[in-house]
Amino acid sequence: MNKLSEEKVLRDPVHGYVRVSEEIIWRCMASREFQRLRRINQLGSTSMVYHTGEHSRFTHSLGVYEIVRRMVSEVKDLRENLSEYEKITVMLAGLLHDIGHAPFSHSFEAIMKRKHEEYTIQIITQDSELNRILKEYDERLPEDVASVIRGNHPNSILCQLISSQLDADRMDYLLRDSYFTGTKYGEFDLERILRTMRVADDRLVIKVSGMHTIEDYIMARYHMYWQVYYHPVSRAHEALLAKLFQRLLDLYHQDSAIVEQLPMYRALLSKSVLSNDEYFRLDDATCLYSFQLMERMDDPVLADLAGRLLNRRLLESAPIERYDEIRKRVTEAGYDERYYIYTDRQIQNPYEPYSDHPSHGIWMLDEKGNIRELSHISRIVSAICYNSESDDALVFYPKGV
Amino acid sequence: MNKLSEEKVLRDPVHGYVRVSEEIIWRCMASREFQRLRRINQLGSTSMVYHTGEHSRFTHSLGVYEIVRRMVSEVKDLRENLSEYEKITVMLAGLLHDIGHAPFSHSFEAIMKRKHEEYTIQIITQDSELNRILKEYDERLPEDVASVIRGNHPNSILCQLISSQLDADRMDYLLRDSYFTGTKYGEFDLERILRTMRVADDRLVIKVSGMHTIEDYIMARYHMYWQVYYHPVSRAHEALLAKLFQRLLDLYHQDSAIVEQLPMYRALLSKSVLSNDEYFRLDDATCLYSFQLMERMDDPVLADLAGRLLNRRLLESAPIERYDEIRKRVTEAGYDERYYIYTDRQIQNPYEPYSDHPSHGIWMLDEKGNIRELSHISRIVSAICYNSESDDALVFYPKGV
Amino acid sequence: MNKLSEEKVLRDPVHGYVRVSEEIIWRCMASREFQRLRRINQLGSTSMVYHTGEHSRFTHSLGVYEIVRRMVSEVKDLRENLSEYEKITVMLAGLLHDIGHAPFSHSFEAIMKRKHEEYTIQIITQDSELNRILKEYDERLPEDVASVIRGNHPNSILCQLISSQLDADRMDYLLRDSYFTGTKYGEFDLERILRTMRVADDRLVIKVSGMHTIEDYIMARYHMYWQVYYHPVSRAHEALLAKLFQRLLDLYHQDSAIVEQLPMYRALLSKSVLSNDEYFRLDDATCLYSFQLMERMDDPVLADLAGRLLNRRLLESAPIERYDEIRKRVTEAGYDERYYIYTDRQIQNPYEPYSDHPSHGIWMLDEKGNIRELSHISRIVSAICYNSESDDALVFYPKGV
Amino acid sequence: MNKLSEEKVLRDPVHGYVRVSEEIIWRCMASREFQRLRRINQLGSTSMVYHTGEHSRFTHSLGVYEIVRRMVSEVKDLRENLSEYEKITVMLAGLLHDIGHAPFSHSFEAIMKRKHEEYTIQIITQDSELNRILKEYDERLPEDVASVIRGNHPNSILCQLISSQLDADRMDYLLRDSYFTGTKYGEFDLERILRTMRVADDRLVIKVSGMHTIEDYIMARYHMYWQVYYHPVSRAHEALLAKLFQRLLDLYHQDSAIVEQLPMYRALLSKSVLSNDEYFRLDDATCLYSFQLMERMDDPVLADLAGRLLNRRLLESAPIERYDEIRKRVTEAGYDERYYIYTDRQIQNPYEPYSDHPSHGIWMLDEKGNIRELSHISRIVSAICYNSESDDALVFYPKGV
Repeated sequence: MNKLSEEKVLRDPVHGYVRVSEEIIWRCMASREFQRLRRINQLGSTSMVYHTGEHSRFTHSLGVYEIVRRMVSEVKDLRENLSEYEKITVMLAGLLHDIGHAPFSHSFEAIMKRKHEEYTIQIITQDSELNRILKEYDERLPEDVASVIRGNHPNSILCQLISSQLDADRMDYLLRDSYFTGTKYGEFDLERILRTMRVADDRLVIKVSGMHTIEDYIMARYHMYWQVYYHPVSRAHEALLAKLFQRLLDLYHQDSAIVEQLPMYRALLSKSVLSNDEYFRLDDATCLYSFQLMERMDDPVLADLAGRLLNRRLLESAPIERYDEIRKRVTEAGYDERYYIYTDRQIQNPYEPYSDHPSHGIWMLDEKGNIRELSHISRIVSAICYNSESDDALVFYPKGV
Repeated sequence: MNKLSEEKVLRDPVHGYVRVSEEIIWRCMASREFQRLRRINQLGSTSMVYHTGEHSRFTHSLGVYEIVRRMVSEVKDLRENLSEYEKITVMLAGLLHDIGHAPFSHSFEAIMKRKHEEYTIQIITQDSELNRILKEYDERLPEDVASVIRGNHPNSILCQLISSQLDADRMDYLLRDSYFTGTKYGEFDLERILRTMRVADDRLVIKVSGMHTIEDYIMARYHMYWQVYYHPVSRAHEALLAKLFQRLLDLYHQDSAIVEQLPMYRALLSKSVLSNDEYFRLDDATCLYSFQLMERMDDPVLADLAGRLLNRRLLESAPIERYDEIRKRVTEAGYDERYYIYTDRQIQNPYEPYSDHPSHGIWMLDEKGNIRELSHISRIVSAICYNSESDDALVFYPKGV
Repeated sequence: MNKLSEEKVLRDPVHGYVRVSEEIIWRCMASREFQRLRRINQLGSTSMVYHTGEHSRFTHSLGVYEIVRRMVSEVKDLRENLSEYEKITVMLAGLLHDIGHAPFSHSFEAIMKRKHEEYTIQIITQDSELNRILKEYDERLPEDVASVIRGNHPNSILCQLISSQLDADRMDYLLRDSYFTGTKYGEFDLERILRTMRVADDRLVIKVSGMHTIEDYIMARYHMYWQVYYHPVSRAHEALLAKLFQRLLDLYHQDSAIVEQLPMYRALLSKSVLSNDEYFRLDDATCLYSFQLMERMDDPVLADLAGRLLNRRLLESAPIERYDEIRKRVTEAGYDERYYIYTDRQIQNPYEPYSDHPSHGIWMLDEKGNIRELSHISRIVSAICYNSESDDALVFYPKGV
Repeated sequence: MNKLSEEKVLRDPVHGYVRVSEEIIWRCMASREFQRLRRINQLGSTSMVYHTGEHSRFTHSLGVYEIVRRMVSEVKDLRENLSEYEKITVMLAGLLHDIGHAPFSHSFEAIMKRKHEEYTIQIITQDSELNRILKEYDERLPEDVASVIRGNHPNSILCQLISSQLDADRMDYLLRDSYFTGTKYGEFDLERILRTMRVADDRLVIKVSGMHTIEDYIMARYHMYWQVYYHPVSRAHEALLAKLFQRLLDLYHQDSAIVEQLPMYRALLSKSVLSNDEYFRLDDATCLYSFQLMERMDDPVLADLAGRLLNRRLLESAPIERYDEIRKRVTEAGYDERYYIYTDRQIQNPYEPYSDHPSHGIWMLDEKGNIRELSHISRIVSAICYNSESDDALVFYPKGV
């Protein structure tokens, strides 16, 4: 593979710069499928609460790439033990792990018949601009990148860099979401984690001298989940999205002619698997524009839900215990309960300790070379993970009922 | 007017919090027209260079409001001399100054028959949700807010807070664009500017002890313009936008039936003035979706330009001196020169000094109470504004010709 | 009391500005006793590990004042319920709480016959420049400020602001030590704590909506203790200080003429209580200069320990379990074990939950107005405080034995 | 030379980490002479205005080293063209350039018979712990390091890294002083300067694409000088220092027995050149302790000036034009005008353009490989350097005359 004649850099407030010196990386970044990620918001509904959280999966994906690049360049055990080809493979896996993401995150998947993870693999391994770029470099590359993302690459270290409890994906989104929303909860000491990272016994480990940094990272995750990702206002917006797509599906099943008015959903509603080209056209802009169309359609439920989404007239939330009372009020107020009551339960365990799989758990390396799972040596983490699973179950309903 | 029972806050990484204690402000923020600003990107084409510059006019407008709120609360001369009604008026003017903004900034105005500033006034003063909220508070309020934005409010101090060389609008966008793009050029010391701000002789002035801070602000502006706003890559993207809209207009003039395929532009192309409701529907999402449609339309120029915009296949740039040579190459390569050559000249004067209008120039208050225009006392600013107007004229053209 | 004609500000990177609008505060800041705090390092031995932690108790004391000022200005329940005199009293208590601090923190107290807290009270209530300034304002003021610092002021809320598990002192030092050492562990969201602070049932409480912020604060404390304050290298430096002062004391008891060579310690060694004027002269500079003198004195132990302190030739550390083995090696190497072996055990409980005293524990106010102690509602804190007391016992000894 | 078995890092809030992988560097950092820099304040009198500017020359020297290290590692033209020995030499020159600094900066030199730069050379090249460490590595090393610091090393690039208008020394102090004082004026984009740095025609040059970054750096310097370094309050403190040392000198000339009371100045006052060991003992602590002694001595001028310094009872300042009037008032009030009037003029040119010496001026490399001096291509810099030399001449005198 060719090196670029000069390292290229992209300014990034989280990492300073995203640095690229391999031509293959640069070309993938320029591909049509990667550029589409500019039109997929990273945080979806969260910007309804933290209004500055407007960044895209494009910026996040570049950030994940950059963290992987630093890992394979700065962590000695990775730098010296991975081949150039493996380094390229895992950097690409970081860059492309979200390439098949649907608009608006999980709510949209209600009307998808395949999960977005499958589209990620499809875009990498089947006919697409990206796929052609990868194959030109090496025929095996699409499959190798895909296997890292799937988690079944023979060198499990590569998989751990991309998907584990201490992977580049989580590290970037915690730092990034924290920076862009203006919350401080997600900050942790990435520099020190990189400095204390080693490979031992075929797994990524952290030297015990970095234990406090890891504890801090675990807490950062915990707080970001409750303060940001699972915020009731964000979930109220997701509730609307889910109900809108459910209503769309129900209407389509009653009469498929609805796609004449909403052509952007024709393929999605009528086919079981979209082509890469059809999937490409589904992005946030497409959905937002469809909400404008829906707002003026005849179906009162669809029109109302679309208007609520566009104009942020969100649902209220209450503890799940009040479900029966609220349901009664909602139906008495004349709302169709299929679309105007939504329940949602979020559970979060700050850390899931033990497992026999190396990519589960966080593994610490002590001075004597022993590897132990984090919760066995951190009193804080041990205390947390066995005592503090917390859950939050809410019912969502229209204001004023 | 009612105070909110408890101050509401919105987290903002630039200002810490945006604070709201007036119900009228809160209601305007919740209005349909204000929520639309979430779908208008602040920086337009700039995110093609600084990829993290993805924030919206929604967040900027809240930031301008917050700076105005701080000015009328923290600057003693404003706090004590403005009435409550005037404070509400000017805070709303800050909040709403961009309410009529079109998608993609200036390039879009090529197909608009009215300027976005006129739509701002129209939305505030004519039938809209926002207009109703304002009128409910006070029948005069829509007109008073509009007059501050227009710059003809009888109390010229209010106008200066919103539009002058040291207004809340510029202050917010320099700080915000700097934060979100990750460049440091736009940073300056807002706290100290607020501390040294006074009112004297019916104008906003800055105590001379704040002169270095103002010099730093002038330089911040200067650098942001050249490093960020006028970056050739950003202008290359704007060139494509301008050419795409020009092609759309030309096609419409040939055959107005084109709007059957692009219904989102029907009103815009056929009417001279849009209603508030029609204007509401024009946002970034609408345009981005239209580019998807165009990419698959028969006209090769429209399809090509739309594809370039979606997939970031930008134009190249060269100094204007090479115009003739490049034009020859472009036409020889078979491109229609009406749509594939674009020239653009940007001139920037870091500071425009003298004028007899109080809202022009930046006015300094010395220890003896004399008011002098900034360039008369700052050697740095004087040197800059008479010697360093810089301009940059470029020609843009397709790669590979 | 007179307001200053214009608010004065001191730039502070942690708080932006320290703001003063009361003349009495300004005069106390200018007093001889307060200026002495410029010559007392805040972190003592910690700068041997985190070399940029060189800030003084002067800057910390200004920071504590600023947080108290914000509390009594911005927390509505305090702003409205405290009298002007009480506000002045508690701001001064924040400013002056460390006024009697000795050089080099705790190690120096080995040769003091009174604790530094007693000197704090003495300086405020007995003959000093500070005492005169306070009395001029109000005869009762010295005693009232002292009673807040002592914790026995009749209005216990004042005491809680200065000394509790969520007091201005801790808040400032976590933020400040974090900023100056460059560690991120001590950061937490002060703004949000101030926003959720209330007074209920005669105690400071935090609304439950602020619970995650408090959890984050508890963890910040925990990490700062282990990563910064109790770092083995810092304790190794403290060990040397303790041993040096012990040796000095032993030599003085053998022959008090040693003070001829070290006149700065004459009063301290010969008197049981120092006058304010004598105490004033004990600062870091005095001690550091004395180490230079000691380095050239005849006693080999004193000279060696002083040289080690000046030139950072610190002791090594090992787990306490190795005490017997190390002691043997130290004596065999010819070292006097009285001065060359040091043991130190640090215990830290991230949070001490229950107590019936309002100033102990952190109290949360739920939506229904009930007050509950933090560990009863935070699963995280509950898990931590009953399971994760951690301790670290070390033995320190000369390198190379 | 031996590499350390593992890179060592020192946390630094300005640079993230200071990284050391050469044993010789680590040993020099641990030397007695380098550790002394912990006791020499970087900003001297500036902390009288910006109270948090309390950092030492120790932290600054580590920062200069780190910037040099990054230059020789990250700037390709340096990395590839300098030998390992040259890299070590220039990193050491950065680390040690201030090793001979006197306490309290320039004011102290009033009583020194040699400049501190000469002591820097003396400590490196003559008998000292540092000198022994350097010689052990290579007999030539002391002299080579000294020649870089002196500016006469045969490879002039090395000299430019340490002393030029764009050297590591200035870069570190602007960033560091900015961070620790909490002013934002000194910030500039170090990353981008490193990225655009090249070597051409035996000089350090910056690619024209980095011109705006350099303009920003020039302005950062300019503002730091006027806002921080030349602040009148800082100069008022320096005035007191200068007068105190002048008085001490005058008293010594009258009767040299004064050194019995102030033994720390014996060598300094009686000898023309101090030994390294004698010089070692002069640090801030020594001076501060001496002020305590002076405050209680019989000479009323010395006692008064010492008390003013310890307790921050500074002189007032006024424009030099008022000199005659003020002198009259000072003498009428009974002050000895030799010690109670001080005049000081500071001139600052933001950038000194042309010179034929490569280390003067900042040199830009254009796309065609031509090297031009900065002011020839930057309109801003050109405007500034020929029009805006500014000076500030003040007279200082006791308050209340």
